[in-house]
Amino acid sequence: MKSPVKRTSRDIRTANRYEVLRQIIAESPTSRPDLAAATGLSLATVASLVGELLDLRMITEVGFEDSAGGRPRGLVAVNASGGALIGVDIAETYVRVELFDLGLNVLVRAMEEMRPGEGLPEQVVGHVATAVGSVVAQAGIEGARVLGVGVSVPGQVDRSTGIAEYAPNWDWHDVPLLDMLSEVIAYPLYLDNPLRASAVAELWFGAARGHSDAVVVNLGTGVGAGLIIDGALHRGVSNSAGEWGHTTLILDGRLCHCGNHGCVETYVGAPGIMLNLRELSPRSTLLHPGDQTATVDALTRGVAKGDPVAMKVVRDTAGYLGAGISDLVNLFNPEVVVLSSWVAKKLGEPLLNEVRAAVQRHALKRPFAATEIVLSPIPTDPVCLGAATFALEGALQSVGQRNVKRATPARSRTAPPS
Amino acid sequence: MKSPVKRTSRDIRTANRYEVLRQIIAESPTSRPDLAAATGLSLATVASLVGELLDLRMITEVGFEDSAGGRPRGLVAVNASGGALIGVDIAETYVRVELFDLGLNVLVRAMEEMRPGEGLPEQVVGHVATAVGSVVAQAGIEGARVLGVGVSVPGQVDRSTGIAEYAPNWDWHDVPLLDMLSEVIAYPLYLDNPLRASAVAELWFGAARGHSDAVVVNLGTGVGAGLIIDGALHRGVSNSAGEWGHTTLILDGRLCHCGNHGCVETYVGAPGIMLNLRELSPRSTLLHPGDQTATVDALTRGVAKGDPVAMKVVRDTAGYLGAGISDLVNLFNPEVVVLSSWVAKKLGEPLLNEVRAAVQRHALKRPFAATEIVLSPIPTDPVCLGAATFALEGALQSVGQRNVKRATPARSRTAPPS
Repeated sequence: MKSPVKRTSRDIRTANRYEVLRQIIAESPTSRPDLAAATGLSLATVASLVGELLDLRMITEVGFEDSAGGRPRGLVAVNASGGALIGVDIAETYVRVELFDLGLNVLVRAMEEMRPGEGLPEQVVGHVATAVGSVVAQAGIEGARVLGVGVSVPGQVDRSTGIAEYAPNWDWHDVPLLDMLSEVIAYPLYLDNPLRASAVAELWFGAARGHSDAVVVNLGTGVGAGLIIDGALHRGVSNSAGEWGHTTLILDGRLCHCGNHGCVETYVGAPGIMLNLRELSPRSTLLHPGDQTATVDALTRGVAKGDPVAMKVVRDTAGYLGAGISDLVNLFNPEVVVLSSWVAKKLGEPLLNEVRAAVQRHALKRPFAATEIVLSPIPTDPVCLGAATFALEGALQSVGQRNVKRATPARSRTAPPS
Repeated sequence: MKSPVKRTSRDIRTANRYEVLRQIIAESPTSRPDLAAATGLSLATVASLVGELLDLRMITEVGFEDSAGGRPRGLVAVNASGGALIGVDIAETYVRVELFDLGLNVLVRAMEEMRPGEGLPEQVVGHVATAVGSVVAQAGIEGARVLGVGVSVPGQVDRSTGIAEYAPNWDWHDVPLLDMLSEVIAYPLYLDNPLRASAVAELWFGAARGHSDAVVVNLGTGVGAGLIIDGALHRGVSNSAGEWGHTTLILDGRLCHCGNHGCVETYVGAPGIMLNLRELSPRSTLLHPGDQTATVDALTRGVAKGDPVAMKVVRDTAGYLGAGISDLVNLFNPEVVVLSSWVAKKLGEPLLNEVRAAVQRHALKRPFAATEIVLSPIPTDPVCLGAATFALEGALQSVGQRNVKRATPARSRTAPPS
């Protein structure tokens, strides 16, 4: 199974194109010399990449600025109205769809609730199609301006074939999700999972931007860690890297739905946090059986009021998290660890402070000293944003794509959307 | 602490130069078209890199082969006598030094024993200088032909400053080892640790060759995991990535010298294996108190004879290893996991078989299916080989190096060696 390592100038050019656009989105308007300084690329390379992005109408010339003593510098900015991108976050209990301009600002949203028992692939596809139709209609734009739709679905995903191989919450096995979606959605489609969507959102727009090595820890119902290595998402040989939720924290500990015992996820995923609470105080009024969101909300309010049980549950959870995050710090030696997803967002600073203290107790000094631990600064749903970013990356990857060697993950049909 | 991600055509050219030389070393003689096919690089790129390596006298033209119907193809091979490389493995109880030709064949060896209590930096430096002097004298070559000396020292190493920041076995803190060595050794010096030396040895000459993503698990007195990502060693932001030995396997488990509890190393490093044996059978004749090597040898012989205690200890150790290696499989999704270092070499196939079964029990199906688990195929000391490879990489990196932005880790003084 030897596969030669191929690094082509094409790969590096695509990565540099991402980097330049990322910088323009972050700092519009900006000049070519400033882009060169911010990215470390040569001025000639920047000028050439800026030319490509101008041709694609993804960016636009917006005037000049004085440069001390020299001739005025041309400024470029994101051409926000040059196209639209759609991000789809399929979660356990809802489908959220957001439509973005090219500055990755949310223009409109749609949300479909999914009741328990509504987890059949056809039902999920129906919800996605309805919500995508809704955002396009709300935005009032022509279908042709949508550059792509990124779709995040929980579990193990084969990105190249578009198959959802395993989604534990619905017990999906080998569902050809991308083919099913392409029957009802006419735009290029890109399938991946929330772990990688959140990581890409942080890399482009959040706390990992500008860092070579970062880890994005997703704390929700499931947990995982998106690995940014050398400025790019590490996917692994079969696109399943980052399954930190299924690393062992306590050998022979709690049973996990993956079949293993003592997985990180069983202690720090939302159901694990509920179990931490139940073990500490079985009759606590903080506990909302069967309702993760309500329980985490109750813990958040409890901590704010100084409730000792709530504080102890958050401290215990942070203790587990600290050991698990230390494993990531010791293994990867990242510059930054970002806590993302809804559990991290709700529990916020009190959780972050306990986690930092716990990581300091467990991690080796040298890598700990090199790592910042922060909450995700992204104000909207990072999974929708990341999914839309997959569509943006797909559009950038296809620039001048004549010698493509691999199958592209994008799928589309030619008819207009229904 | 934002650092822009710099990927330059220079980085990619250095990586491609490594790749082409690696392939020539593996398959001499070979032709430019065969090199292009094996590496995935264009024929023009290969021709240019081969030209550079010819100019450096690292490779040589060795004639022609017929190509079906076409004109004869020029063949190139490693110019084994074009230079020499030295690898130094500083371990807890010995200093081993090997001198290699450019085909990375061992020409001569020297070994210095270190008694307990001989762990002062000056003492270690003295042993290294003696052994390096010995191999150069034995080989009977001119000093000028030595392209560099790679030095591996256990623990946390700052490669750019040449400081051994922390070596737990000797309680070293911030020892300026490279400066001390450069006082007595005249060749360019490259400092790193055994974890990374073994990984680079597998990448160039062993089971990771030709793979994009691989993990090299080092099982010795200490344990760790060298991470090969995208065909290159992942070092992390402060060169301390790969500290798998200090990830948590059992929260609040055995006390580790790093201060944490339940680290992988406390269960599967040689002292941990001795403890596994002592807990199972405190008076076992297999146990040689204070002597890790003798105990592991006794276990190896015991397993070969079907001794039930020895078999149980190896199975228990493999159980711990299986959980810890599954963490690596689930996190990185590598193509291959290589078991290296002396404990893996001694326990061999019986350990490997138990480890494979244990990883299958713990890991997720998708990444497990994509991963081979193998023993290191390198017949000599992989740490010496990897250390020499750092020197080879250093020599290749300096090709045409005029616009170097970072400090080079190589140090040398101008006087000849003492």
